Amino acid sequence: MVDVGSASIPTAIERLALSCRRAGSPISIGLEPCEEYLPAGFRPDIGGYERFLRTVVDATAGQAAAYKFNLAFFEALGASGVELLYRVRQQLPPDTYVIADAKRCDIGSSARRYAQALYESLGADAATVNPLLGRDSVEPFLEYSDRLSFLLALTSNPGAADFLAPGALYRRIAEAASAWNTRQNCGLVVGATQASLAAEIRKAAPSLPFLVPGVGAQGGDLRGAAKAARAPEGNVPVLFHVTRGILPDKGKSCDPAAAILEKTRNWRSQINEAVARVTGGTIE
Amino acid sequence: MVDVGSASIPTAIERLALSCRRAGSPISIGLEPCEEYLPAGFRPDIGGYERFLRTVVDATAGQAAAYKFNLAFFEALGASGVELLYRVRQQLPPDTYVIADAKRCDIGSSARRYAQALYESLGADAATVNPLLGRDSVEPFLEYSDRLSFLLALTSNPGAADFLAPGALYRRIAEAASAWNTRQNCGLVVGATQASLAAEIRKAAPSLPFLVPGVGAQGGDLRGAAKAARAPEGNVPVLFHVTRGILPDKGKSCDPAAAILEKTRNWRSQINEAVARVTGGTIE
Repeated sequence: MVDVGSASIPTAIERLALSCRRAGSPISIGLEPCEEYLPAGFRPDIGGYERFLRTVVDATAGQAAAYKFNLAFFEALGASGVELLYRVRQQLPPDTYVIADAKRCDIGSSARRYAQALYESLGADAATVNPLLGRDSVEPFLEYSDRLSFLLALTSNPGAADFLAPGALYRRIAEAASAWNTRQNCGLVVGATQASLAAEIRKAAPSLPFLVPGVGAQGGDLRGAAKAARAPEGNVPVLFHVTRGILPDKGKSCDPAAAILEKTRNWRSQINEAVARVTGGTIE
Repeated sequence: MVDVGSASIPTAIERLALSCRRAGSPISIGLEPCEEYLPAGFRPDIGGYERFLRTVVDATAGQAAAYKFNLAFFEALGASGVELLYRVRQQLPPDTYVIADAKRCDIGSSARRYAQALYESLGADAATVNPLLGRDSVEPFLEYSDRLSFLLALTSNPGAADFLAPGALYRRIAEAASAWNTRQNCGLVVGATQASLAAEIRKAAPSLPFLVPGVGAQGGDLRGAAKAARAPEGNVPVLFHVTRGILPDKGKSCDPAAAILEKTRNWRSQINEAVARVTGGTIE
């Protein structure tokens, strides 16, 4: 907590921890308007995507610690896709924790504008940021002290071996992020598929929250990831992200909302069980 | 040229070279809806920004090899800012060479969506791409063989010393980009402020086009940059970017269009002179 006179304002990291506790599971659910993901009966147009995203949000009400908008999918639809993003975001219930998965980066006044776009215009609680251009490119995001900026440290794709792995750049990013976390509002994106590297990142950044994508359809090992990502001290949230994993199986006729809720509950159980295994019972 | 039956289709790199020759100068002009840049009499709202951007485009007609949209400034204005981006882009004269300065990056299907957003929905001829996540994150951009993807190699900010400089990551990016340039559609963003490093990048990527920001208000040394960036073989375009440098001085009352044209001509002369000095007279 940061003391401001007599009141205590929760830090950005504490706000995420609180959202995980409220939801009863550190699960992040993806919002991606993607043709492949549409259940039967939804058209691949703006109206169909809007109905699909609302179905996901309504079906999972109270179940998710966070919703993560993947901006790429909205932007691919052009200006009307970006309007859709804003509309869906604005109509989320109050207190919904929103992550803008935008992986933005730039320098100087441009970085400031990207931070403004995500944290003011879109009103996200957290965002993903690409740290390649260094401290002053990340700082405009961190200046929003009540928002959580997740810096990309390690991704689960083969290309992570090109620049992130050599010289353990992922570890240097984690160390830098730890040093830049003076406002308790810096986190890391850590791919779930390489548990040994994730453990190395955790060692370099013991008190940063992790956003762990790839535990669902990308085939990451959930238990291994939960063990590697576990913070030595409590109250450091580790958020596990699922997009495809909660969507109805293609080709099966079903009530989409019911199928989404069932699959979400299943993922919550798996995540909670994996976390409980390594923490001895508490959901952080 | 790539031979397709009897016809020869210019490569993406050749298309940019052609645009530089047509314009008579390898100058890229920035389009950024930014309050600080507005001449007197322009309001800082969507209408005022639209009139400002159109004034820049109209005043510089035929003078620019490319226009570079800085997406951060449009996105900061929310969904209506993105609509403005699309509107201004769509109303550019046909054959205008458009760069989407977006510095996007992601993996898998998300990277494909960002490429689709910039190259299909927005219809950009070129884009800036952050290569941190490696080859398969860049490949979806390079699959658009007629578009030019400029990978970030070196920026002019202090933070370039955090991750890009150690271990000469900038050089490894340049070497990788050279290897990935199988379709003649890969370029590099190379900050102008560190000529010795730019020369090292040129050595690692002798045949890639460079986009060189920072020669205007950022205080880069134009002649040093032109020398360092010069490609050993001809017909490899090096584009010099100016945004603030062509805008009317603040506080001076003047005809904005006339001031922009005058400053643009001045920058063209400076750029052409710097290039001629190192190439012995030809504008590449």
